Amino acid sequence: MSAPRLTLEDIRAAHARIRPYIHRTPIMTSASLDELAGARLFFKCENFQKIGAFKARGAHNAIFSLTDAEAARGVVTHSSGNHGAAVALAARNRGIPAYVVIPRNAAEVKKASVARLGAAVTLCEPTLESREGEARRITAETGASFVHPYDDLRVIAGQGTSALEMLEDQPQLETLICPVGGGGQLAGIAVAAKALRPGITVAGAEPAQADDASRSLRAGRIVPAGNPQTIADGLRSSLGETSFALLRSNADEILTASEDAIIEAMRLAFERLKIVIEPSAAVALAVLLGGASPFKGRHIGVVLSGGNVDLDRLPWIGR
Amino acid sequence: MSAPRLTLEDIRAAHARIRPYIHRTPIMTSASLDELAGARLFFKCENFQKIGAFKARGAHNAIFSLTDAEAARGVVTHSSGNHGAAVALAARNRGIPAYVVIPRNAAEVKKASVARLGAAVTLCEPTLESREGEARRITAETGASFVHPYDDLRVIAGQGTSALEMLEDQPQLETLICPVGGGGQLAGIAVAAKALRPGITVAGAEPAQADDASRSLRAGRIVPAGNPQTIADGLRSSLGETSFALLRSNADEILTASEDAIIEAMRLAFERLKIVIEPSAAVALAVLLGGASPFKGRHIGVVLSGGNVDLDRLPWIGR
Repeated sequence: MSAPRLTLEDIRAAHARIRPYIHRTPIMTSASLDELAGARLFFKCENFQKIGAFKARGAHNAIFSLTDAEAARGVVTHSSGNHGAAVALAARNRGIPAYVVIPRNAAEVKKASVARLGAAVTLCEPTLESREGEARRITAETGASFVHPYDDLRVIAGQGTSALEMLEDQPQLETLICPVGGGGQLAGIAVAAKALRPGITVAGAEPAQADDASRSLRAGRIVPAGNPQTIADGLRSSLGETSFALLRSNADEILTASEDAIIEAMRLAFERLKIVIEPSAAVALAVLLGGASPFKGRHIGVVLSGGNVDLDRLPWIGR
Repeated sequence: MSAPRLTLEDIRAAHARIRPYIHRTPIMTSASLDELAGARLFFKCENFQKIGAFKARGAHNAIFSLTDAEAARGVVTHSSGNHGAAVALAARNRGIPAYVVIPRNAAEVKKASVARLGAAVTLCEPTLESREGEARRITAETGASFVHPYDDLRVIAGQGTSALEMLEDQPQLETLICPVGGGGQLAGIAVAAKALRPGITVAGAEPAQADDASRSLRAGRIVPAGNPQTIADGLRSSLGETSFALLRSNADEILTASEDAIIEAMRLAFERLKIVIEPSAAVALAVLLGGASPFKGRHIGVVLSGGNVDLDRLPWIGR
């Protein structure tokens, strides 16, 4: 297969396309977290993004890239939650139907937010097979366009737009780090950042218990995630063909964090930044707090990718 | 007693004095909270302020107003926490000693933050008598200047600076609302806002179970709070002579919220704004969410006064 083509111009076009519908999220800093990390951290607060997660960017770019004829038949996706809400919102903004397939075991807060946005929700079994099967059935019945959560160049271009904002707001950044699940966000950010600043380091962060991205890049082929057990529910996916190919060319490394480190980083974000982030977002901070961080002393852009957490079951309470 | 004199110019001077040491905090909005309130809400995020609460403003103004000779002997205060941390930080910024008296039953997170800032901490009984007695003893022994948590014109001027920022950032505001405990913040905000916009409404918000400010303004004299039982631990104080006199002339009304409404508002801030606020801050949102809000349809500046909460014991978990 030839390498997928994604350019800085694609990502700039995505930014122009989605700008009316998304927030330009702020960057926050914390002297006490800088001290803990031994580095200067610039937190890109995608937890404040529409629907509470970066996924709003990619979904809007994909859905506003459809022709009017395609759009009229609606869109369908499967998602453990944030991408589903993002597709629901983008479809509502475009005025078209959305069909969202969600695993039964997804967080209640995520299911509720998708339904509140007006999408038709179908629950499925928590396997990739069941998710894809339900989505295919809906596509066949409705003619809706499928919007993959990450293995789609339009989605990846949208996710990359946060890198444009980070490097514009904080030109001194030497390293960017973001969580990696399916790899769409990391791929988009890596393409944008490397094009703008060839010398920048772009790293992914994933749970040690869902380290398929690390293993895939080492092996030179996609190693499936299986059914990983991690609190970071947004990062249980395997890489896609498109994201994998882009990561091989553009990402520098993938760091991993233990479950305990993820929970501690999440709690620290609540305590020191006074913001609510979800476990998947905390992974990007977690890899920087241990003694093993390779980025000591640097200016680091850290993508806090989302804030949709079940507030009735915070992981550091009642452990 | 003659009315205390506090002018817009005093508050502007305070702003210039403290600006190097405090954050100009952002204003956040939420379409879904606007819908719940039936109004346009502009949240002034003092939970992102230095030491996690608005108290940094007043403490810096008081401590940077001291002469060098006064400052050299240090400062002393008593506080259930946020003011103590604010005095500790301001003293550290001025390079002078701080002595902070804290009730034994204050939240651990607040005691720890005061100590981390380098202040000498003395624990006392949870009564006003014990707090004041310990502070007097320290003053006698050290010659340190006492910085009252709220009944001090320099402190009140500092707290009022957030109104300058709110009205500059959002000139269309028709109403400002902030929590009222000792009344320093509400007094400062009311003086600043009424001077800048004579037609603006300035309201306080307090727990129904600690409604001494409402009762005091109705009675025309300070009604002591006693030992009120409320989750809003920052709002258990009685009004001071200075704050009471300023509130009589400048505040329009005081609204009250039930404990359940406070907890629900706090959870909503976490869920919808993705930010961490303390129960005392949630009171200002709580009074706007019930059907009884007198401010439907208005543009309202809502001061979220702090974010220092014990994250291991969030009040909606395990009730």
